[in-house]
Amino acid sequence: MEFVDGVKKKEAVGIAEILEGDYTGKRVRLNGAVHTIRDMGDVAFVILRKAEGLVQCVYEEGITKFDLKSLKEECAVEVMGTVKAEERAPHGFEIRLEEIRVLSQPAEPLPIPVSKWKLNTSLETKLALRPVSLRNLRERAKFKIQEGIVRGFRDYLFSQGFTEIHTPKIVARGAEGGSNVFKLDYFNKKAELGQSPQFYKQTMVGVYDRVFEAAPVFRAEKHNTTRHLNEYTSLDFEMGYIDGFEDVMAMETGVLQYIMELLARDYKKELDMLGVTLPDVSRIPAVRFDRAKELVSEKYNRKIRNPYDLEPEEELLIGRYFKEEYDSDFVFVTHYPSKKRPFYAMDDPADPKFTLSFDLLFKGLEVTTGGQRIHDYKEILAKMEKRGMNPEDIASYLMIFKYGMPPHGGLGIGLERLTMRLLDEQNVRETAMFPRDVTRLEP
Amino acid sequence: MEFVDGVKKKEAVGIAEILEGDYTGKRVRLNGAVHTIRDMGDVAFVILRKAEGLVQCVYEEGITKFDLKSLKEECAVEVMGTVKAEERAPHGFEIRLEEIRVLSQPAEPLPIPVSKWKLNTSLETKLALRPVSLRNLRERAKFKIQEGIVRGFRDYLFSQGFTEIHTPKIVARGAEGGSNVFKLDYFNKKAELGQSPQFYKQTMVGVYDRVFEAAPVFRAEKHNTTRHLNEYTSLDFEMGYIDGFEDVMAMETGVLQYIMELLARDYKKELDMLGVTLPDVSRIPAVRFDRAKELVSEKYNRKIRNPYDLEPEEELLIGRYFKEEYDSDFVFVTHYPSKKRPFYAMDDPADPKFTLSFDLLFKGLEVTTGGQRIHDYKEILAKMEKRGMNPEDIASYLMIFKYGMPPHGGLGIGLERLTMRLLDEQNVRETAMFPRDVTRLEP
Repeated sequence: MEFVDGVKKKEAVGIAEILEGDYTGKRVRLNGAVHTIRDMGDVAFVILRKAEGLVQCVYEEGITKFDLKSLKEECAVEVMGTVKAEERAPHGFEIRLEEIRVLSQPAEPLPIPVSKWKLNTSLETKLALRPVSLRNLRERAKFKIQEGIVRGFRDYLFSQGFTEIHTPKIVARGAEGGSNVFKLDYFNKKAELGQSPQFYKQTMVGVYDRVFEAAPVFRAEKHNTTRHLNEYTSLDFEMGYIDGFEDVMAMETGVLQYIMELLARDYKKELDMLGVTLPDVSRIPAVRFDRAKELVSEKYNRKIRNPYDLEPEEELLIGRYFKEEYDSDFVFVTHYPSKKRPFYAMDDPADPKFTLSFDLLFKGLEVTTGGQRIHDYKEILAKMEKRGMNPEDIASYLMIFKYGMPPHGGLGIGLERLTMRLLDEQNVRETAMFPRDVTRLEP
Repeated sequence: MEFVDGVKKKEAVGIAEILEGDYTGKRVRLNGAVHTIRDMGDVAFVILRKAEGLVQCVYEEGITKFDLKSLKEECAVEVMGTVKAEERAPHGFEIRLEEIRVLSQPAEPLPIPVSKWKLNTSLETKLALRPVSLRNLRERAKFKIQEGIVRGFRDYLFSQGFTEIHTPKIVARGAEGGSNVFKLDYFNKKAELGQSPQFYKQTMVGVYDRVFEAAPVFRAEKHNTTRHLNEYTSLDFEMGYIDGFEDVMAMETGVLQYIMELLARDYKKELDMLGVTLPDVSRIPAVRFDRAKELVSEKYNRKIRNPYDLEPEEELLIGRYFKEEYDSDFVFVTHYPSKKRPFYAMDDPADPKFTLSFDLLFKGLEVTTGGQRIHDYKEILAKMEKRGMNPEDIASYLMIFKYGMPPHGGLGIGLERLTMRLLDEQNVRETAMFPRDVTRLEP
């Protein structure tokens, strides 16, 4: 009988191994995709693309046992050669090639110059060709940084006693209500795609006190803007035994501080590649919704048209105000009007027209919505009644209040928006791996 | 201006702090849900439930400033009292109560005895009341262990150079084809819910060499069995530059070894609570599909009815065979028949009726499907043609082969099934937080 007993060391090495070990002058085996070939006649530079970066290989006529003409960009290869220090090469070394073995051949040349530093193509073209445009070093760096954001989110919350949960995306009814839900037929029952894990994460606060989930959410918004996606990754957490929504803002600040530390430590290469300066999150100003409107109205001489709503332009101005006055890229806007928040938001006892809630703006864009939730059964029933909602429609959610829930609150962070602002991108599609919008369902 | 600068230490402490610090004889503040109240007359034991476990609090008539009659199970409370060593109490200490502050009251008593060690209720009742039945210590322990499985999966793959990806769940066409897809209307276009991230993870191998995703997948299977869910969490990885599907099996073995180590180290409390013995995964036998059928046919005197399919009973017998003969709970069954595998599976050049693929059985249940994939453009077109498939339907996927892909393979692990077998549960609904099946869309 044959047995499998785990991962074995292979002969082929990685970039990190070469950098860490004393490989200079030694023969190595290495695999990768042919990123570019620069043929200079007797010698040629063959640049390999690996997950960790580029490797410069030097082909020498008569020494390398291979016909260079049969090598194309995007061939997958395994090469054998000698490591030589070369400060002008990526990572400070190159490989003098002895052998090249082609593992796989492309059928056609690339439709866009993936190996260029900047892809000078339209967003449309980039997205249509996403499966290959992501092979560009700077394109893929964006999603490596996005990986870091999610890792930081999870690792920090684990350290704070949170439990990770997995909740269903096919639901009987969305948490937010309204018309922006995708509907589907579920074995002859009406179902929807979850707009948010709201009901489930609150439910799980009754079980684990503190929970989080990083998972897809779905919004059938018909507007095609630079900041909307119809499917996105939501970083959600919910925590019990809070003294107020300030505890939720403090936790988010902790999350952001940890994410920036992690990015600075483990994702420096990608940050440098994209020229990203990490924002200062040592302290984030917090301002009331109504006060924020006044501040920008005064400073930028702008009339307040609707005291109960924030227009995107106002959000931008609030961002600008706090950058100018406090040098902060982030600002918490608190106490949103009750009519703009879902039924489960806790109204402010001091003035029930407003809620104990907040948004976090990052360079003038909402990247988080959060707040304290109602935990009392009678209170939530009363609020539903006032809004003309039928408790029977969400009986299995209301069950948690009927049988007791601690005071709690939480938030949802839009991963793609946070990444977009961090990378100073102008369109959220730039920071969604395979974006879904009103016209885009592929790739 | 007010500023938020991160998480502040609160006065209320947790169980771990009491255990680690020298708190005996000291006054502490602590919050939690009232799990049970045992009234003995002059004294009463009030057991608090926290995320980390139970805390025994002692109410003493005349000393504790509180009217015990106003305390109910599932009240959320903050208590103040003195820590006293008490070896018969959970964690070896109790709190002599001075004050109790009720943070929140339930409206009704619990419909099931959540605080009992075993919930002696039917699965139906447990699932219908999931929002509160999960508050039972043993019920919630299952999903804590599930958290550990996902953590182990991710952490091990990070250590092996994998990149985490987030791929869309609303897709133009499912990866597996067939009739078990949920359809939805996407802005007047036909769309489906992803049955698997297959196309996307293969695409991202061209970008990052090695990738993984832990995310929901959707299967509109009409059969209502003990091992099927219509939505589940799939632990997927895909890796480039493999020498064969054996590399994928080796990586999965590494993943399982790491998961078991992590569970033994960080989830011992939950494993003990559920009486779980972790399986030995130091080596996992691998057997060909056709040979496995012969082995069980010989040993258990069972006729081979269909040489190209494995019946669930045969899977169980293969599991039994390898337990009896090799004392292994796991077995890799390799070289599945080509007609039973999707078009992207690589056929065995030695006998194209079979594929370079495998399933992993855990105690006779398929918990993983994986294998090497076709990477050559002409080869995949030829296989699609043989199956009567139209390449234009999946042009954006085929793009990756046209422009070059390394040899690669990967797998998908069903999280709920793996948890089910690990915990020796008889129904996969026991290990899905909020299961979705043919009749169940709520809670």
